[in-house]
Amino acid sequence: MTLEAIRYRAGSLQIINQLLLPHETVFDEIRSVQDAYEAIKSMKVRGAPAIAIVGCLSLAVELRAGAGGDDPVTFIRESLCHLTSARPTAVNMGRAARELMEFAENESMEKNSEQLRESVITWIEEMLERDVNDNKKIGNYGAQHILSGVPRDSVTILTHCNTGSLATAGYGTALGVVRSLHALGRLKRMYCTETRPYNQGARLTAYEAVAEGFPATLITDSMAALTMRERGITAVVVGADRVVANGDTANKVGTYQLAITAKHHGIPFYVAAPSTSCDLSLESGRDIIIEVRPPEELTSINGVPIAAPGIEVWNPSFDVTPHQLITGGIITELGVFLPSELQAALTGRLTAL
Amino acid sequence: MTLEAIRYRAGSLQIINQLLLPHETVFDEIRSVQDAYEAIKSMKVRGAPAIAIVGCLSLAVELRAGAGGDDPVTFIRESLCHLTSARPTAVNMGRAARELMEFAENESMEKNSEQLRESVITWIEEMLERDVNDNKKIGNYGAQHILSGVPRDSVTILTHCNTGSLATAGYGTALGVVRSLHALGRLKRMYCTETRPYNQGARLTAYEAVAEGFPATLITDSMAALTMRERGITAVVVGADRVVANGDTANKVGTYQLAITAKHHGIPFYVAAPSTSCDLSLESGRDIIIEVRPPEELTSINGVPIAAPGIEVWNPSFDVTPHQLITGGIITELGVFLPSELQAALTGRLTAL
Repeated sequence: MTLEAIRYRAGSLQIINQLLLPHETVFDEIRSVQDAYEAIKSMKVRGAPAIAIVGCLSLAVELRAGAGGDDPVTFIRESLCHLTSARPTAVNMGRAARELMEFAENESMEKNSEQLRESVITWIEEMLERDVNDNKKIGNYGAQHILSGVPRDSVTILTHCNTGSLATAGYGTALGVVRSLHALGRLKRMYCTETRPYNQGARLTAYEAVAEGFPATLITDSMAALTMRERGITAVVVGADRVVANGDTANKVGTYQLAITAKHHGIPFYVAAPSTSCDLSLESGRDIIIEVRPPEELTSINGVPIAAPGIEVWNPSFDVTPHQLITGGIITELGVFLPSELQAALTGRLTAL
Repeated sequence: MTLEAIRYRAGSLQIINQLLLPHETVFDEIRSVQDAYEAIKSMKVRGAPAIAIVGCLSLAVELRAGAGGDDPVTFIRESLCHLTSARPTAVNMGRAARELMEFAENESMEKNSEQLRESVITWIEEMLERDVNDNKKIGNYGAQHILSGVPRDSVTILTHCNTGSLATAGYGTALGVVRSLHALGRLKRMYCTETRPYNQGARLTAYEAVAEGFPATLITDSMAALTMRERGITAVVVGADRVVANGDTANKVGTYQLAITAKHHGIPFYVAAPSTSCDLSLESGRDIIIEVRPPEELTSINGVPIAAPGIEVWNPSFDVTPHQLITGGIITELGVFLPSELQAALTGRLTAL
């Protein structure tokens, strides 16, 4: 079985409401751009690639129903602007919006409203397909790279946060690598960290693992070092919020600590990310601004207080892993690159961010 | 203000019920050995030194009321046996029981029942005093050692789990070092990890920090590396469940990962532990058996499920930090020692475990 977190059929879109996971699996209907905006804002859908896909698909749904009338370009522009504002730090939605807007403006030169709607819908549907295909390529490249080091054995992977069907258009990045290893019959076990403070690992990655039948074990974030020493971890594979030109990688807080710990144990550390998550306009990770989120994420769970009242809290949401610690490589849909190779490999392939 | 977690006056004993922390501060009366047994078993009191103190003080309370009648030695033996069985892995209770039993048997040669009761009560009261004094020495030795590296500045300390008044007779080990630094006016800030899965940091250390007025910040376990890089950590100081002859140290899970992370950042890593937590009978940490606790500690909080149903869990309670990573030293009441100096420093000072 494959978990389908985004259900799109021409004219209709449903998404798993991630706020109810892992206890209830409920699909919410997304009928409009405004529905998508609210779903993104409230984190019913999360994960930078998934946000972009759901945003664009909601636009396709409205266009199919004739939205925009005689001036679809204005409708598309306003919709994309609104969608991008829902979670401004999610890079992929901004990039998709710019690419789609450029495409729509070019098309509008020679097409009437109806034809324009059709071609934009096709563009968006191809984007969904491309995202899944890119993730499959990431999964396969990553799996082959990891297996090349252990020609005969099954492998044990440690991952962090959620980078699966629930975070992407449908296959996953780091979890896509795990998926490919499982499909090849070479996944011995996956360890997933619970990923405090928002518990994406315990709630979402564990949910996907159970749904897909991966042999998987949940640990706390603090058990990663012991797990590496005692449980024969072959490789650590994580996703990325943003990879910059020198290979420095911003990802969910805790990633940096995992990379240090992997290095200490001589375990290869991989970042899995589509080229659309790479931002060559920044030279190094020092330029990335780290989002700090509310203290309540640490001090309560489901509204129940779990920490001493009055304690100060620091809750940075991401950290930056320096490229030197990404010892396995950066897995993209174009292949696996050392951080030092990334810029050359991607130059000319990406539109400017 | 100093938090008094164990209130003992001749003939009366009260302890903070730690199950209700941090939300309610309630003192429970301990009237008998059986009361103490139940408090230890149910984790109303926890922390190896605190368990030993509360167990022995409950015996003193009963002896002062005349327990044991004409045969106090038998009563003492049975009581200590019962108390030791409440949490068999807590080393300090076992050691205190053996020392106290030996003392009681020697005394019984030349004293009557009433005199024996008196001298055993005195022994126990001195034990309480000694434990607090030893912790104060640990605090001072540790503070001086850390400050010797930074002659003029205030320092920022990162700690893990709970090692304060709530875990000891009243001053703390690692948190005692923080207390001493604060008393000297040299504590800039303390960072405490929440310490998943049982959240001793968020619940207990944060509670003590607020109660004592330490400048303190709570972080998740996974933020330690980022905190070391961004927040100028001077030293990491943790407690110990057991330190063996070569300096390898068993402590709350996550300690090993912190030590690796500290080493990566060139930050000194200290273990603070009374000599009674040192076990020279084991040569290396490889001989320590790691307790694995129930999955529910990870998958629920206060009875509310927080993880995907059906996921497997690994929940080791401790890990072992190899002595090579204890770069600051082992802080005891006898001084601060490098792991390689520990055995010689303690030999002859400890009764066999």
